[in-house]
Amino acid sequence: MIKTAVLGATGFVGQRFVQLLETHPWFEVTLLGASERSAGKPYAEACHWLLDSPMPDALKDLPVVECSPEKIRDVDLVFSALPGNLAGPLEAKLAQKGLKIVSKASAHRMEDDVPLIVPEVNPGHLALIGVQQERRGWAGFISTDPNCSTVPLAMALKPLMKYDVQRVHVATLQGLSGAGYPGVASLDALGNVVPFIAGEEEKVQTECVKLLGTLNGDSIQTAGIEVSASCNRVPVVEGHMENVFVEFQSEVSVNQIKKDWATFDHMHHPKLPSAQKPIQYLEQENRPQHRLDVMAGNGMTTTIGRLREDGPRRVKFTLLSHNTIRGAAGNGILHAELLKHKGLV
Amino acid sequence: MIKTAVLGATGFVGQRFVQLLETHPWFEVTLLGASERSAGKPYAEACHWLLDSPMPDALKDLPVVECSPEKIRDVDLVFSALPGNLAGPLEAKLAQKGLKIVSKASAHRMEDDVPLIVPEVNPGHLALIGVQQERRGWAGFISTDPNCSTVPLAMALKPLMKYDVQRVHVATLQGLSGAGYPGVASLDALGNVVPFIAGEEEKVQTECVKLLGTLNGDSIQTAGIEVSASCNRVPVVEGHMENVFVEFQSEVSVNQIKKDWATFDHMHHPKLPSAQKPIQYLEQENRPQHRLDVMAGNGMTTTIGRLREDGPRRVKFTLLSHNTIRGAAGNGILHAELLKHKGLV
Amino acid sequence: MIKTAVLGATGFVGQRFVQLLETHPWFEVTLLGASERSAGKPYAEACHWLLDSPMPDALKDLPVVECSPEKIRDVDLVFSALPGNLAGPLEAKLAQKGLKIVSKASAHRMEDDVPLIVPEVNPGHLALIGVQQERRGWAGFISTDPNCSTVPLAMALKPLMKYDVQRVHVATLQGLSGAGYPGVASLDALGNVVPFIAGEEEKVQTECVKLLGTLNGDSIQTAGIEVSASCNRVPVVEGHMENVFVEFQSEVSVNQIKKDWATFDHMHHPKLPSAQKPIQYLEQENRPQHRLDVMAGNGMTTTIGRLREDGPRRVKFTLLSHNTIRGAAGNGILHAELLKHKGLV
Amino acid sequence: MIKTAVLGATGFVGQRFVQLLETHPWFEVTLLGASERSAGKPYAEACHWLLDSPMPDALKDLPVVECSPEKIRDVDLVFSALPGNLAGPLEAKLAQKGLKIVSKASAHRMEDDVPLIVPEVNPGHLALIGVQQERRGWAGFISTDPNCSTVPLAMALKPLMKYDVQRVHVATLQGLSGAGYPGVASLDALGNVVPFIAGEEEKVQTECVKLLGTLNGDSIQTAGIEVSASCNRVPVVEGHMENVFVEFQSEVSVNQIKKDWATFDHMHHPKLPSAQKPIQYLEQENRPQHRLDVMAGNGMTTTIGRLREDGPRRVKFTLLSHNTIRGAAGNGILHAELLKHKGLV
Repeated sequence: MIKTAVLGATGFVGQRFVQLLETHPWFEVTLLGASERSAGKPYAEACHWLLDSPMPDALKDLPVVECSPEKIRDVDLVFSALPGNLAGPLEAKLAQKGLKIVSKASAHRMEDDVPLIVPEVNPGHLALIGVQQERRGWAGFISTDPNCSTVPLAMALKPLMKYDVQRVHVATLQGLSGAGYPGVASLDALGNVVPFIAGEEEKVQTECVKLLGTLNGDSIQTAGIEVSASCNRVPVVEGHMENVFVEFQSEVSVNQIKKDWATFDHMHHPKLPSAQKPIQYLEQENRPQHRLDVMAGNGMTTTIGRLREDGPRRVKFTLLSHNTIRGAAGNGILHAELLKHKGLV
Repeated sequence: MIKTAVLGATGFVGQRFVQLLETHPWFEVTLLGASERSAGKPYAEACHWLLDSPMPDALKDLPVVECSPEKIRDVDLVFSALPGNLAGPLEAKLAQKGLKIVSKASAHRMEDDVPLIVPEVNPGHLALIGVQQERRGWAGFISTDPNCSTVPLAMALKPLMKYDVQRVHVATLQGLSGAGYPGVASLDALGNVVPFIAGEEEKVQTECVKLLGTLNGDSIQTAGIEVSASCNRVPVVEGHMENVFVEFQSEVSVNQIKKDWATFDHMHHPKLPSAQKPIQYLEQENRPQHRLDVMAGNGMTTTIGRLREDGPRRVKFTLLSHNTIRGAAGNGILHAELLKHKGLV
Repeated sequence: MIKTAVLGATGFVGQRFVQLLETHPWFEVTLLGASERSAGKPYAEACHWLLDSPMPDALKDLPVVECSPEKIRDVDLVFSALPGNLAGPLEAKLAQKGLKIVSKASAHRMEDDVPLIVPEVNPGHLALIGVQQERRGWAGFISTDPNCSTVPLAMALKPLMKYDVQRVHVATLQGLSGAGYPGVASLDALGNVVPFIAGEEEKVQTECVKLLGTLNGDSIQTAGIEVSASCNRVPVVEGHMENVFVEFQSEVSVNQIKKDWATFDHMHHPKLPSAQKPIQYLEQENRPQHRLDVMAGNGMTTTIGRLREDGPRRVKFTLLSHNTIRGAAGNGILHAELLKHKGLV
Repeated sequence: MIKTAVLGATGFVGQRFVQLLETHPWFEVTLLGASERSAGKPYAEACHWLLDSPMPDALKDLPVVECSPEKIRDVDLVFSALPGNLAGPLEAKLAQKGLKIVSKASAHRMEDDVPLIVPEVNPGHLALIGVQQERRGWAGFISTDPNCSTVPLAMALKPLMKYDVQRVHVATLQGLSGAGYPGVASLDALGNVVPFIAGEEEKVQTECVKLLGTLNGDSIQTAGIEVSASCNRVPVVEGHMENVFVEFQSEVSVNQIKKDWATFDHMHHPKLPSAQKPIQYLEQENRPQHRLDVMAGNGMTTTIGRLREDGPRRVKFTLLSHNTIRGAAGNGILHAELLKHKGLV
């Protein structure tokens, strides 16, 4: 078993890591990192558990460790669910010391030599790890996960890139868990929509073109597509829905796109423990729906529906993805499994 | 006072007409039409009242009348909130008999000689009434209101037409009241989004170009813009939000558009009883919101926010409108006030 | 494997039976019964699936059978989730023909020779089955499950009966799934509470005293306690919460009651497949909560919290139970497992 | 016009005071007090406005004043919506200085010489003001409003006291606005019930017997009834519902109680500006409901329904009240109107 740390373990995404790793065949959580305020307390006391399955018994008494460069040690793998501002310097110091970090934090995502990975979309981008280690002289490395609303959009678009995607308009309807805890106040959530999420649109727009870009020697050449997002918080606990309008340069066929999605998976290698069918397409006219579809493939499958032509060389469709599993902890774990498969962890 | 009938008076939109007309200075409700099943019962008994202000006392004991051509009489004005399938033949017979009908039903909206009106957007289209009466030999007429999600979109786009709008992508987040009662099942609504509303996208797409079209002799020349909609039902009671992406042929300026919206109103005449500022723009980055803004201008004002450039000759913004007031009964009443002002009622 | 029918298989509770039986070690669903309208259609087509895990593949193509005495055959066990009015005559005919029926329907619950069972509470009441068969001359039998809000109340009260419970006041906060589909209209559910559920209070009050009664020869002597309920529908999908006030004739101790609950289980025999810890008590002051606790013990465990003294010989507490698992399909399956264990199926 | 301060003006209840006083015929808001952090800022900037009607234009530019004894001056009346811990010492200092304070804060409610007032229930208790001024040597005074869930319970019970109420069990379903802003996290509110509100049950239990007590010379003799509460937070924005079980020593009749409620009002004097019918009883079996009834009497009327016998000398019923109007700002304003009517302001 690979000794594993979860940083930001008391937050909502940190809890998802802990939950999903409870019975993992390769990774064993041996260190839980959180803020100085929680340090020293048993996890059960430090953490206001928010998930609907109980906290793993094995971790209830594990003392939480402060997220400092000195205290995070004796592990082979680190999952970071730290807030962006803390993650930046800490992750760099840990990687320098030799730790191998899969980070959900936004701090390093857009750096040239840092991979930004959805395993089924761009596994080849992991080659940047070597570049990073050489360039920075690090024994360890940082490899990052995208923002939660970027992940499924990149999954849906990747198989369509061969039709020369030109422009993408996406309006998101995002679940409340994406804001963490306490996050959105209930008076702002109940029977209401907030049509703004700080920094979200920029993340979708910039991360998507990196994810869909091509590895060119030592760097990623970003995809030549324009992505424009409009992001909304809706009164749903888990799940991000996206209404997507795509304009292509080539002719497209709705039937062919469905086939492309059905067979999509660029992660060519034996099945990894957390791997699921990346995309399922539902033919019913009123799907996907959060309540029915968010747990498809244990929360790892992106569900798409309502694909329709929208004039020449245009289509529109709706997708749904679990934001704290596929959009966060689940993607990170699959990402780490791929690293192990490649011998990088 | 003008004697007024409300048809479909026991439905949600019918109730809004009854509520908004309670203290109207010109129109007095003297006839409440509903299905045969309700006929003869006092309104208080026939109607499962759903609004948060009480049913008007004056109408509680008024017996409901069956919506048949024979029974709907002795009124000068008819507001129709009938279901589309019933509305078609009945409204035609009533108009033939001489009744003046402002209809929220979709049945006649797209007919060449039937006006489709948002008073501040296309008051000149009322000239079709003369065409209709002459062509059909009717003593009365039918003039229609658009679909609830079309109304605010047309309001927001009208002042932008001078910049040669080419294409509009709109993703809607629509309140539950738009589906009437019982309408959407709570198991489909609570903590969920349904990304489909039967017929809605087609209505937005076709009605918008008629509304924004120009009167050309005896007919409307539809606007030469492409509108593509993706419609969603969200767990909110009242209010339709729309994320709008617009592509222009001309250069546009965000500041100029805000000025255009601030001064927008094509209904040039003395103030009508239900008239309010048509559009308000909010500068806060997280507005509009259903809970805070849906009642702006007594539910008659469309609130817009988040206008931003989206590449050359493109903008995106978010709007919110009250679907059963501005999108239904309120628009119908303002529409009738305009008819009276023009001497048509 | 025991061939098993689910009647009312397209309803919400029927779907729970189908879901929970998918991988059951003893019971195999071989017949799905529904209304005449659905008869002949494959289950996937006849059923508007409402659960968040997918419909079992093995049943998607199984043609649904009409719920008539002739068509329900070739099975050894029947789970009935029929509406009360249909269940009465049909279940009687099927039992007469020799079928063994575990029914969630209310039709026969209060009949003298029909067991009303929560396995951990009153397994001994199954002795009524022999009485029933002899008295009615039936080859099969009907054994019933209580109403969904009665089940956890009876579980919580059973271990307290030794303190001579005199009077119980219970105010319920019940989830929407209890009303089936389409059930409660979303306009009545969202941001609202409906303080009335037809027939519910009477069921809680009468069923509870039968469940907690004692077998006395051929009949149940009802418990000598007064139960008074006030039932509310709250905007929550799954889970019934109950605020319970109990008055005793004997002295009670809060600590002793917690011990009584911790060790409670009158189903004395080897572990059955669906058996879980019947009651868990949480010490946190703000528990139980629907979102966190409803799935405790796979939805079979009743969670209790906030036990406090309320004057001499009085306590109050709050409980939570999954209404379509413990309160319906889950209780029925455990009930059937107990029947099999006793050789009655 | 009486110059009036609102302390805690940026909070949810403070905003309600500001909203309800906008067009008040007697009281003019001339001072807005808030925390030091807000001091000096215009109200529109200092306050995150949360109500669905706009902030009064007249106050948008009024600089907010720090809530210190020196800064709160030049007013004749003070409405305090301060947090309990701040309210205690500050209100005492202000009253000593001569200010007349109607306080929603809990700090002084239970002090012997401080009135706790629901105007229709116990207007005579205002006689304590003289006692207070004499005993403390204050030029001004403090008169308090009860907790939001106590107010309607006391209103419903007051006319029943003549039947010798012995014991009251009440289970509350309370709206989110009662927790202020940001208050309850949306992840704790959406599709969930929290069965605990810190301090709430104690407040209901102790305040109720003071409110229903009788003035006996210089002090209140508390009512000899036992009140036991179980309080829950439900996903509703505004409105507290209460399921009430009452045990009497005397015989009671459901019909007589309805008459008692219909005629209830102990505030014997000419109509005050904010006075409304205190109690309305609805005969429909599924009322009251938050969405339909919370605004009854502009939020000042307590709506009761479902009164039913519950065995000998017992009844149960359900009530609903607007927690930030009748339960807070509205009760405070009516309270102040009564003070003015009595010449105390």
